[in-house]
Amino acid sequence: MDSSITSKTVGVVAPQRAKFSEPVRLKCGAVIDQYELVYETYGRLNADRSNAVLVCHALNAAHHVAGRYADDPGDVGWWDNMIGPGKPVDTDRFFVIGMNNLGGCHGSTGPQSINPRTGKPWGADFPLVTVEDWVATQARLADHLGIKRFAAVMGGSLGAMQALQWTVSYPDRVGHALVIACTPNLSAQNIAFNEVARQAIITDPDFHGGHYYEHGTRPTRGLRVARMVGHITYLSDDVMADKFGRQLKHGRLQYTFEPEFEIESYLGYQGTKFSDYFDANTYLRITKVLDYFDPGFEHGGDLAKALAPARAAYLVISFATDWRFSSERSREIVRALLHNRREVTYADIDAPHGHDAFLLDDARYHGLVAAYFDRIHAETTA
Amino acid sequence: MDSSITSKTVGVVAPQRAKFSEPVRLKCGAVIDQYELVYETYGRLNADRSNAVLVCHALNAAHHVAGRYADDPGDVGWWDNMIGPGKPVDTDRFFVIGMNNLGGCHGSTGPQSINPRTGKPWGADFPLVTVEDWVATQARLADHLGIKRFAAVMGGSLGAMQALQWTVSYPDRVGHALVIACTPNLSAQNIAFNEVARQAIITDPDFHGGHYYEHGTRPTRGLRVARMVGHITYLSDDVMADKFGRQLKHGRLQYTFEPEFEIESYLGYQGTKFSDYFDANTYLRITKVLDYFDPGFEHGGDLAKALAPARAAYLVISFATDWRFSSERSREIVRALLHNRREVTYADIDAPHGHDAFLLDDARYHGLVAAYFDRIHAETTA
Repeated sequence: MDSSITSKTVGVVAPQRAKFSEPVRLKCGAVIDQYELVYETYGRLNADRSNAVLVCHALNAAHHVAGRYADDPGDVGWWDNMIGPGKPVDTDRFFVIGMNNLGGCHGSTGPQSINPRTGKPWGADFPLVTVEDWVATQARLADHLGIKRFAAVMGGSLGAMQALQWTVSYPDRVGHALVIACTPNLSAQNIAFNEVARQAIITDPDFHGGHYYEHGTRPTRGLRVARMVGHITYLSDDVMADKFGRQLKHGRLQYTFEPEFEIESYLGYQGTKFSDYFDANTYLRITKVLDYFDPGFEHGGDLAKALAPARAAYLVISFATDWRFSSERSREIVRALLHNRREVTYADIDAPHGHDAFLLDDARYHGLVAAYFDRIHAETTA
Repeated sequence: MDSSITSKTVGVVAPQRAKFSEPVRLKCGAVIDQYELVYETYGRLNADRSNAVLVCHALNAAHHVAGRYADDPGDVGWWDNMIGPGKPVDTDRFFVIGMNNLGGCHGSTGPQSINPRTGKPWGADFPLVTVEDWVATQARLADHLGIKRFAAVMGGSLGAMQALQWTVSYPDRVGHALVIACTPNLSAQNIAFNEVARQAIITDPDFHGGHYYEHGTRPTRGLRVARMVGHITYLSDDVMADKFGRQLKHGRLQYTFEPEFEIESYLGYQGTKFSDYFDANTYLRITKVLDYFDPGFEHGGDLAKALAPARAAYLVISFATDWRFSSERSREIVRALLHNRREVTYADIDAPHGHDAFLLDDARYHGLVAAYFDRIHAETTA
């Protein structure tokens, strides 16, 4: 991520916590009796509560979207380059909410939380969640905050799936959806990569069928491999070639299994860093959330039919070098929305960074989002 | 692999074994005092020994290239669709040799073999080999068989790298090289996938630093994940979509971590099958052979300069849907050869199967190879 602290940051922020005691029935059939969601907000909710923007997170991010923490100034929000005063999502105009989804490992109720029915951590017993479940619980957070309708819901990748789902689940509660680096469903290849990641975790002897908390272990080896394989799919072949190519760490071959090429060091570093802080049970569930997302499935594969209830306007953005969720997949969404006579702005940005481009600071990309939010602002203040 | 037994098979074959007692110094500096290579031959060597064809194997194959074994008729050679009487490489005309490379796990000396200096299996102490080392030991096998010059050396993927290297290491000993689904070197992304595979194996607690034979274990979990990630890169996104798409095993979602999508079952099956028979120490070394191959490296990245000693003629074939070693990479080889005024026939076949296409029975591809061998035959009998 290319988050830079500028003078235009939202500054010091602090997470908040909302408790929900009304049970939620998940798509898998399981019921969670009570749960908590951690969130952050930036900017001010206006008098008629019309300027709220929900930011949905992707695989490994959470509620800390912008700004920094007083006790850890280096921990900058994952979309700080996008959200702040004068930034594309201008917190001088909009009230922006980031939250950690149900099942997460950043403070919201998830596998590491205590299951009130047993008094022990949920662990492997935490149910499998879906994009629909996340959107339903996000709507409860909106209720909690007194927000009837979002000016916009936005996200990239898995976050974009949530933005899209919002417009179907709650057509009257969202004005605009920003659907960035998205796909209407995962391809066989996408699922295959996720399954490799899951198998790396599940077959790690320290996983103990997901009950590793009780064993005092963590399946860090598997989680590390899982992150490494994921990371490859976030970057374009070209950007990897430009950044690392065949550069050797020590100038010449060593003929060992220690990292010899820079790309090996980089991946290993990323994998280790991730496995040190992320919870494997959450990671497993989030990969399944991705696999399961398929709004067209219950409509015979007809995405336009699935999106028919939507009333929002859309900004859809894809990145030409994204081989994980290719531009063509975004265009499937665009076509389905146009078929339904929705208002759609679509751009394919030829940034070189692959899937990760949605997190980076590309002037064309940010300019487009800024212009789109200018329009939303004009509407909400009209 | 799409190997079909037809009436035109070479029939029942049996592996042979050659022992070499003259030490070989490897590129890494290590010396192997004595070693054995397992090989098979099909067809007859002609009187002037001018009709020999060497087939080099890729990652997981070996010397069993064509035909079947008397005691296991289901075990058909990995390139049986290419090699046999009346097939593109016609064993009525050519004397074809398949062999298992040094470091392999199919009978040639490798990590599972006894290290004569210790009386124990080599295990982790078996040195890292390279394409150059393989070609050098293949040349000794040729000496052993009384073959001064090959009519052709051929291979796909890693096998193609060996064919290319032959023309540089022994310019006078090879008439034609068939370089199929090749690359002049691995990209950062290619290396990254190999490193994920290696890390899965190395971090498997049953790996024991490569000394698992002594521990009575095998790192099958890691090897399984390694094979799964490799397998994804052999297939095109499209062929995976056509073959599996989002098909569910049980018609509906189960909300478990058991395989739910057909692609998950397929990959898991392939991974398990592979980890049951393949040796992890060999797999690790073969991925390094791939990473290390880079003929241009010692010539400042100038591939044409690296290939300057070559005197062979070439058939270079790439596959349009191969995203592992893309067609563009094959064209780099073609350009370097043309720069050296080598005779090159090049075709890019738009088979849908990705990298695996080199193993499959595509009429255009096989027709091209057949025509090329007609020409070689005309030369050798002129």
